[in-house]
Amino acid sequence: MTEAETFDVIVVGAGVLGVATAYYIQKNSPDKDVLLLDRYLAPGQANTAMSAAAVRNMFASSTNQLLTDTTIKYVEHVQEGLGRELLFEKTGYLWLLSERQFSNGSAQLWMHRMDASGINYRVYEKEELTQMVPGLNMDFVGDEEAELMHLEQASYGLYGGDCGVLDPTRLVEYYYEEFKSLSSVRPRFGVEVERLILEADPKLDLPGEPFVWQEKRVTGVQTDRGELRARDAVVLATGAWSNALLDPIGIDSQTKGKKRQLFVVHASDKPALNELLFTDGFNSLGCIPFTILPSAGVYFRPQLQEKGFWIGCGDKLGRAFKYVQTDDDLVPESAYYENSVYPVLSKYFPAFEDVRPVNSWAGGYCYSPDAIPFVYFDHGVLVVNGASGSGIMKSDALGRIADALFRGEEYAELYGGRKIKADALSIKHRDVEVESVVI
Amino acid sequence: MTEAETFDVIVVGAGVLGVATAYYIQKNSPDKDVLLLDRYLAPGQANTAMSAAAVRNMFASSTNQLLTDTTIKYVEHVQEGLGRELLFEKTGYLWLLSERQFSNGSAQLWMHRMDASGINYRVYEKEELTQMVPGLNMDFVGDEEAELMHLEQASYGLYGGDCGVLDPTRLVEYYYEEFKSLSSVRPRFGVEVERLILEADPKLDLPGEPFVWQEKRVTGVQTDRGELRARDAVVLATGAWSNALLDPIGIDSQTKGKKRQLFVVHASDKPALNELLFTDGFNSLGCIPFTILPSAGVYFRPQLQEKGFWIGCGDKLGRAFKYVQTDDDLVPESAYYENSVYPVLSKYFPAFEDVRPVNSWAGGYCYSPDAIPFVYFDHGVLVVNGASGSGIMKSDALGRIADALFRGEEYAELYGGRKIKADALSIKHRDVEVESVVI
Repeated sequence: MTEAETFDVIVVGAGVLGVATAYYIQKNSPDKDVLLLDRYLAPGQANTAMSAAAVRNMFASSTNQLLTDTTIKYVEHVQEGLGRELLFEKTGYLWLLSERQFSNGSAQLWMHRMDASGINYRVYEKEELTQMVPGLNMDFVGDEEAELMHLEQASYGLYGGDCGVLDPTRLVEYYYEEFKSLSSVRPRFGVEVERLILEADPKLDLPGEPFVWQEKRVTGVQTDRGELRARDAVVLATGAWSNALLDPIGIDSQTKGKKRQLFVVHASDKPALNELLFTDGFNSLGCIPFTILPSAGVYFRPQLQEKGFWIGCGDKLGRAFKYVQTDDDLVPESAYYENSVYPVLSKYFPAFEDVRPVNSWAGGYCYSPDAIPFVYFDHGVLVVNGASGSGIMKSDALGRIADALFRGEEYAELYGGRKIKADALSIKHRDVEVESVVI
Repeated sequence: MTEAETFDVIVVGAGVLGVATAYYIQKNSPDKDVLLLDRYLAPGQANTAMSAAAVRNMFASSTNQLLTDTTIKYVEHVQEGLGRELLFEKTGYLWLLSERQFSNGSAQLWMHRMDASGINYRVYEKEELTQMVPGLNMDFVGDEEAELMHLEQASYGLYGGDCGVLDPTRLVEYYYEEFKSLSSVRPRFGVEVERLILEADPKLDLPGEPFVWQEKRVTGVQTDRGELRARDAVVLATGAWSNALLDPIGIDSQTKGKKRQLFVVHASDKPALNELLFTDGFNSLGCIPFTILPSAGVYFRPQLQEKGFWIGCGDKLGRAFKYVQTDDDLVPESAYYENSVYPVLSKYFPAFEDVRPVNSWAGGYCYSPDAIPFVYFDHGVLVVNGASGSGIMKSDALGRIADALFRGEEYAELYGGRKIKADALSIKHRDVEVESVVI
């Protein structure tokens, strides 16, 4: 029997959280052999590539505010300071809220917490909003359809000026190339990790180990191309697939997968839609911000490169949770657009009427119960997951936190020098506020 | 097409939590049609029957203290006051702790909280413990095996005098018969619930409903014998099977299954074991209490009816979590007893040396992350689960809380008049202390 290949660290998953983590671990421990693995054939090809890739610091929990604010500033630094084009565009975020939504306690707390953290945002009241967004239908009075659909009329807009959109693949490539320039180990793709290897520590070489009275540690991974061993850590940045690896060894990741879909419409040959896209006055790009409607979780992202919109929906009750992501989570449903998304979208923004998607895709969202990511390092396995649809906008912070845990630091220093307890996002010592502002 | 049968309430699962809930709902809403369903052929035949059925109020969280303390007092009332034999025996609980375990903060907090709640317990120090339990090996000094196994020498015993054991089947039968005496609907067995029926509310009778913009409600269950409709609520008391019904409609139950096993040994023809079983001085039965060893989660329950012991182990890392309970969770593993449990057990209690189990079984434990049960009523489905191995000892309280939620009460009144917020165990408004004392 040949000896299994051994590394110091094996990072499973080359999505944005995996590459950011691999990069920071390698950067701060230059002597360590860090192997990056992915089942796909290139980095960032799975759920990272399926994301709406919008970034915002407009969260209600100070934890999410910190994770996103520092990541966005780092993204800006990479693009402006280091000159690496990430297609990061400060379109802003525009949350449309009804009278009821705006005045309820949860929105008030959200604004209060943004004020306290100095998050750059402002409130547009009805009149101003009407003028700013002529394409927005703000009058549902007497509209029986809108009433039947329980749609609440938009009365306020919360605009976040430091928010925007970026190209997730470019961000992944940035971390990936930086990682490769530091690492002596060639990343491997097309490798499927089948299970974590949990062993007794120390091993007694008895058949049937590990026994219940032994200490245990994850010492490697079984892949479809053989066993790989890790001296210090196996990093799992496996998002909506995490349960399949963690449950069998008795670690409850508390996350679940959920399918999310995006639908692309083009505006160039549709004057009303083109006008909506180039709604001026919010940002220096002269475009409509990333916009969240008051009802049903429907949102759209302006897409300047292809002159159009990406349209999505954060559906809740009625959309299955998945134990692990399945292949059908990658198949978008045209009926879902037509019956669930389109009627809402076109009611608020009539410019979308009769417009049909030219493209669509779907991916797996890795949900955590409090909508705050998990980062923990127990028994040899370092888990970074549960970003709840906001992994890209938290990637830099999460990579640094994972690295701090790896190095046994008490605090992680995020971009700009702000600090967070390295175990604040762990399961055992979790110290976060539940996030209430999720799409 | 014939109309589906319709009830006011459908209770899925006739384990101890299902029958207790059905009983309290029916008792307090006598005009409601309450249908009790189970996939097995009689009540209490699944995981309830597989339990060690030990009951204790020795918890660290005030929530679990309240749930168990009131349930134990009710059990006592049923047996002593109503004259229904439940084989409830106050054997007491004896937690053996090492010096290190006793002095660490978590044990100190546990005792402090039991003091604060007036839980009846006492501490035996080393010398006393030696005299009380002559069968306990308290000296591991120089024992290389014990050292290799990381076994910590017992130095303290925490004894809870109101704790004990009971016959879970008799407790289920009690609630079941009481329920039947009140209900006009005959319970149904051998019926498998395949899925929850989630519908738009109100329905528009459009194909593809429910859409994302519609309100939704669980209105019934699809079973292998057809559809059944519930006007007011579908109660899920489905323990380790809950995810299979809740995930598909987009409710994350946060629970998982875990296999647990019990091994039976007989003492009557083994003098040393017989002596251990009849260790006098703790209780009026003259038997050794339900005893938890300091290491590896191993415990035993005295079984006076068959003059023997039930031996179990709360294994953690290395024992898989299950998304839903599978059939192999019902198969005990003899190698597990021999290699994991026996070496620990016989080291602390040499009387078990060379004794082999005469019987064994396994079942599914329904784990919740904070080791506190869940009770919540959302969108037409009332969930009672996540009892984390202590459903029997919390059954009366959980049944009353579920009924209070069903009736829209703000508080549930537990046995003896103590109250708890009806939504304190919910996911959304959870108001509990994380439990630290789990086996």
